[in-house]
Amino acid sequence: MIEGNELNLLNRLEFWTKLNSREQKNLIDNIEKKSFPKNKIVYEGLDDCKGLILVKSGQLRTFILSENGKEVTLYRLFEDDVCIMSASCALNNITFDVYIEAEKNSEILLIPSEIYMRLSENNIYVQKFTNEITLSRFSDVMWIMEQVLFMSFDKRLAIFLLEQSNIEKSNTLYITHEDIAKNIGSAREVVSRMLKYFQNEGYVKTERGNILITDKKKLLQLTT
Amino acid sequence: MIEGNELNLLNRLEFWTKLNSREQKNLIDNIEKKSFPKNKIVYEGLDDCKGLILVKSGQLRTFILSENGKEVTLYRLFEDDVCIMSASCALNNITFDVYIEAEKNSEILLIPSEIYMRLSENNIYVQKFTNEITLSRFSDVMWIMEQVLFMSFDKRLAIFLLEQSNIEKSNTLYITHEDIAKNIGSAREVVSRMLKYFQNEGYVKTERGNILITDKKKLLQLTT
Repeated sequence: MIEGNELNLLNRLEFWTKLNSREQKNLIDNIEKKSFPKNKIVYEGLDDCKGLILVKSGQLRTFILSENGKEVTLYRLFEDDVCIMSASCALNNITFDVYIEAEKNSEILLIPSEIYMRLSENNIYVQKFTNEITLSRFSDVMWIMEQVLFMSFDKRLAIFLLEQSNIEKSNTLYITHEDIAKNIGSAREVVSRMLKYFQNEGYVKTERGNILITDKKKLLQLTT
Repeated sequence: MIEGNELNLLNRLEFWTKLNSREQKNLIDNIEKKSFPKNKIVYEGLDDCKGLILVKSGQLRTFILSENGKEVTLYRLFEDDVCIMSASCALNNITFDVYIEAEKNSEILLIPSEIYMRLSENNIYVQKFTNEITLSRFSDVMWIMEQVLFMSFDKRLAIFLLEQSNIEKSNTLYITHEDIAKNIGSAREVVSRMLKYFQNEGYVKTERGNILITDKKKLLQLTT
């Protein structure tokens, strides 16, 4: 059974107040609470149609995966975020696979796909919500695509380091070169080479297991 | 005023038969017929919110554009195809710019954004249609993204040549190396180098202004 502060999370669904009390009760009765430890896979592609994810706490990463295991991060989910890509079978015409993993210990509420599908069948507000959240993710992905296609690698790496520093609220990033490569769709060697250059320029200091941002201003200049 | 066979095109809109006669009349009264010569820009980004495009004849190309003029093709529109990205202001949460140009002399029907917006406001079938067509384009774009990120360049070029040959129903492709580069998000030099390799291997024969596919089977093997 979901509790008080979890009910608040449902307000994140813009159609929530437009549901009648029977629909609201049905949704609450069927919602599932789940916990995922750090690094656990939460969702793996079209065959794994779980449902709509509401993030109660923690941090999740949505990514695509190539046949030979290369990963590229599409977007992250933080507290209060909603993900619809994990309800792919409730969406017509979707033909691509995304994967979601917990980047931190995470708790989610899950609205099972068939419950969401039934709700949206006759409710225009649910349809509008689906539309808006899909387009918002579509926009996220286009941004990534433009970065990868159009942006020079030093710029992409600088943006990534600054974003991580923002998320972690710290200038020390505990992340491997391998993980950075995964996140920005590159190879470990390429990341290491550029970090070495950044270090020589005095932007960062790399140590075993962490990267210290030493000149945020210069790094910021790279991103413009 | 739109005519008989143009009315048939409206059946491509899955919500058409769900509209009442007043809504149908309003849509027909406001629909615009437009012609675009080859190479003419049909739509240029978020500020140019035209409306829903229905392709009556011809061929259109949707692409993204970098600050320094680099282009990458996202998808093509053929006869009977519908494009919703050109009605961006009717879509909430969309934050990316796409461009559309006529690749052949083309005729389109245009449903102005405000007409589409008003229709979708209260009609769940229009919302569903928006959802489905958006997700279908989202899927197109993800496919392109996976190609660019994960696929080796020889494979991408081979796929492009075979697709063009399919579209043109000919083994002779009248396309410059520059245009191929635009289409697959690469540089002219890279395309020319790989085409030279393909020629040495006997897959193609490049001549001034055209490329002849000489060994389709070998090219196909590259794509698997």
